Amino acid sequence: MTRILGIDPGSRFTGYGLIDQVGQTSRMVACGTIATSGDDIAPRLGQIFRELAQVVDLHSPVEVGIEKVFMARNADSALKLGQARGAAIAAVVQHDLPVFEYSARQVKQALVGRGGAEKQQVAQMVCYLLGLEKAPQADAADALAIAICHAHMRVTLARMAGATAIRRGRIR
Amino acid sequence: MTRILGIDPGSRFTGYGLIDQVGQTSRMVACGTIATSGDDIAPRLGQIFRELAQVVDLHSPVEVGIEKVFMARNADSALKLGQARGAAIAAVVQHDLPVFEYSARQVKQALVGRGGAEKQQVAQMVCYLLGLEKAPQADAADALAIAICHAHMRVTLARMAGATAIRRGRIR
Repeated sequence: MTRILGIDPGSRFTGYGLIDQVGQTSRMVACGTIATSGDDIAPRLGQIFRELAQVVDLHSPVEVGIEKVFMARNADSALKLGQARGAAIAAVVQHDLPVFEYSARQVKQALVGRGGAEKQQVAQMVCYLLGLEKAPQADAADALAIAICHAHMRVTLARMAGATAIRRGRIR
Repeated sequence: MTRILGIDPGSRFTGYGLIDQVGQTSRMVACGTIATSGDDIAPRLGQIFRELAQVVDLHSPVEVGIEKVFMARNADSALKLGQARGAAIAAVVQHDLPVFEYSARQVKQALVGRGGAEKQQVAQMVCYLLGLEKAPQADAADALAIAICHAHMRVTLARMAGATAIRRGRIR
């Protein structure tokens, strides 16, 4: 069993979702949304950092997936998003957890099979794969989608590493 | 005496500088540059977070000044800078330190008297005000300049707060 934390960071809303991966199946452990308010950025980043650190303390994930940003709308929103990502990544790397980045396209591809899928379809697949009756809040659902994407990718990565090891004669 | 930490965050180089402010004079306590390398962003943010947290543990500043970014060159550099700022702010807010933001213009105005001053002039004033024989590395010098700017501003802010309190009849 591998416990994976997915994070969808944002300056106003940061979603998180934890899944347990056993073989090909995933089970939801927890999910939530950290909503920050106020004009001062420092307390808001502090809240993201502290609440994610609590989530890590409570649930002890072993690997982390986070959304990769290729291009933000503009420099101002990129700066805000970057700050939220920085605080979120700080919260998990202080626990020495390995962090894997996935683009929105990779997440959609992993869950729906098409990189251009609608957000709605991704949320539906999150519910289907985790056996949830109701869809979680949007940012929490995105975070679960990232966790599921990493769960799929790590199997592929492990196979590739295994194949490489076999070729190198390390695994027989 | 007030111990102030100034931070000039960047994804490759993050400068920090600590000063003790007694009345109108400042004394340097420590300064340095955190240089990160490698392609993976998470370990680099982890390094910024950890080393700044160590600086705070070691020197126990009570207030923090950080450079405010009005507009980055482009979305990509804004995202990178934002991430470094987020990790840096997370390192100080976990110690419940108040964080004050100053634009490059405010820092230049406070040190040189002109918002359009050259970086070189700012570095010279840092050396002059702190009685340093040699200029620190550029990012560390910028961080010290931010700390000195905050030291000046907090006196003004305290006066303004005092004046407000007097008008309100709280201080007689």
